[in-house]
Amino acid sequence: MQPDSRSPIGVFDSGIGGLTVVRALMERLPFEHIVYFGDTARVPYGVKSVETIAHYTTQIAEFLLEKQVKLLIIACNTMAAVAAGMVRDLSPVPVLDVIDAGALAAVQASGTRRIGIIGTPTTINSNAYALAIHRLDPEVRLVSQACALFVPLVEEGWLDHPVTRLAAQEYLRPVLSENIDTLVLGCTHYPLLKPLLQEVAGAEIRLIDSAQAMAERAARLLREQGLANPDTRPPRYEFFVTDVPLRFQTIGERFLGRSLTHVHVVKW
Amino acid sequence: MQPDSRSPIGVFDSGIGGLTVVRALMERLPFEHIVYFGDTARVPYGVKSVETIAHYTTQIAEFLLEKQVKLLIIACNTMAAVAAGMVRDLSPVPVLDVIDAGALAAVQASGTRRIGIIGTPTTINSNAYALAIHRLDPEVRLVSQACALFVPLVEEGWLDHPVTRLAAQEYLRPVLSENIDTLVLGCTHYPLLKPLLQEVAGAEIRLIDSAQAMAERAARLLREQGLANPDTRPPRYEFFVTDVPLRFQTIGERFLGRSLTHVHVVKW
Repeated sequence: MQPDSRSPIGVFDSGIGGLTVVRALMERLPFEHIVYFGDTARVPYGVKSVETIAHYTTQIAEFLLEKQVKLLIIACNTMAAVAAGMVRDLSPVPVLDVIDAGALAAVQASGTRRIGIIGTPTTINSNAYALAIHRLDPEVRLVSQACALFVPLVEEGWLDHPVTRLAAQEYLRPVLSENIDTLVLGCTHYPLLKPLLQEVAGAEIRLIDSAQAMAERAARLLREQGLANPDTRPPRYEFFVTDVPLRFQTIGERFLGRSLTHVHVVKW
Repeated sequence: MQPDSRSPIGVFDSGIGGLTVVRALMERLPFEHIVYFGDTARVPYGVKSVETIAHYTTQIAEFLLEKQVKLLIIACNTMAAVAAGMVRDLSPVPVLDVIDAGALAAVQASGTRRIGIIGTPTTINSNAYALAIHRLDPEVRLVSQACALFVPLVEEGWLDHPVTRLAAQEYLRPVLSENIDTLVLGCTHYPLLKPLLQEVAGAEIRLIDSAQAMAERAARLLREQGLANPDTRPPRYEFFVTDVPLRFQTIGERFLGRSLTHVHVVKW
């Protein structure tokens, strides 16, 4: 059965980082309803076993499918790396994930086919971006770097701070020395560091913001499959979380770039 | 029934930070057997509800009591803040916690009764150090500061790094401007930053390392209650964790200051 074009897009993440994807969707697709699910009680997923991540991911995907979403977006690198295939198997609607979206955008952007990838230690260790990029173009030369401090720096709000600049210089030094022309921001927190990272990397390096890449990818899919919402009224946004952690509102609004309302807590 | 003085000390934490307490115990009480429990699958506790933390804490305390420990040490600030009373209620053996140990050491060390406290946002928000210190001396003037980046900086291994120095200067500035003479390192990760923090704070500030404070407190309790191990053979050390996360061995050995063997994984 064809999904209803007036249904919402379902976006999910292990926490609130995926709100950067929601923000990019709001800007690229302003007529689309969005339902967001952030598993804030069980974040971070990075340290959990594959079985546990698969179990949680299924639970969340089924929750959103019950909300009659027309498209599922996995806005969490860990879930995308570990459980994207499983979500595709169970979902009757199309599924997109941040790793595929970022990989595609990077391959399209790079002229020299020398691409850098930064992400959390879990994402980098999974090698998922390398797999996704090499499926698209096996000739790409990759250099990857785990940047464990970027998530806490973003959550601390030090987006344009000397500490963050110094950390970025340290992390990017080995990546930039490989003459890349494109750098994938392989974590949903990193779009908030984009201005600083662009400065540190230099203007000649093309930064791939996986939130924006995902919004582009989603727009194309909706258009191609005739699923774009024909209505042009202001859409509904709903946010489901499993806990309201410390500094949730502050950090959430920083990610979303606007005030965060219609938040519901789901107790599992 | 009096516990057996030849039994081990049980130490527990939500993760591996409590290994700094184990290290201090090994050095202060070199004849004592130690059993450590780190709930590495469910870390961090800071973002979980009080009910959940209480439930997990009980489960861990009971696990260690089944190992016939003679003393329980809560080496996790979050568990100490939320569930120390509950552990005392259920335990037939003495219970010590890092917050009480650090508070006592700080009150004894301070001449001017102006004390600074640094910790994670969860610990600082709980106000548990202020409660514990004011129970000992209501005249103490306190200034506290959450230092969200110190845990990730320690886990990244940047113990003497320009980024860490700059972050410490930023965090400590408001604390040092209050003319404190004593600074409590209110997190089990912070002892690894002690040399750097001493430099930033200046030599005249007394740093209270809660791992060392705990080792002193435990030594006194064992002596007073006749529970010190009379044997002088090399003791047994055992480590139980609920998961073996990324970089566990590297980070664990950095905390423990020696190689980490006899690690068992408990699946809950």
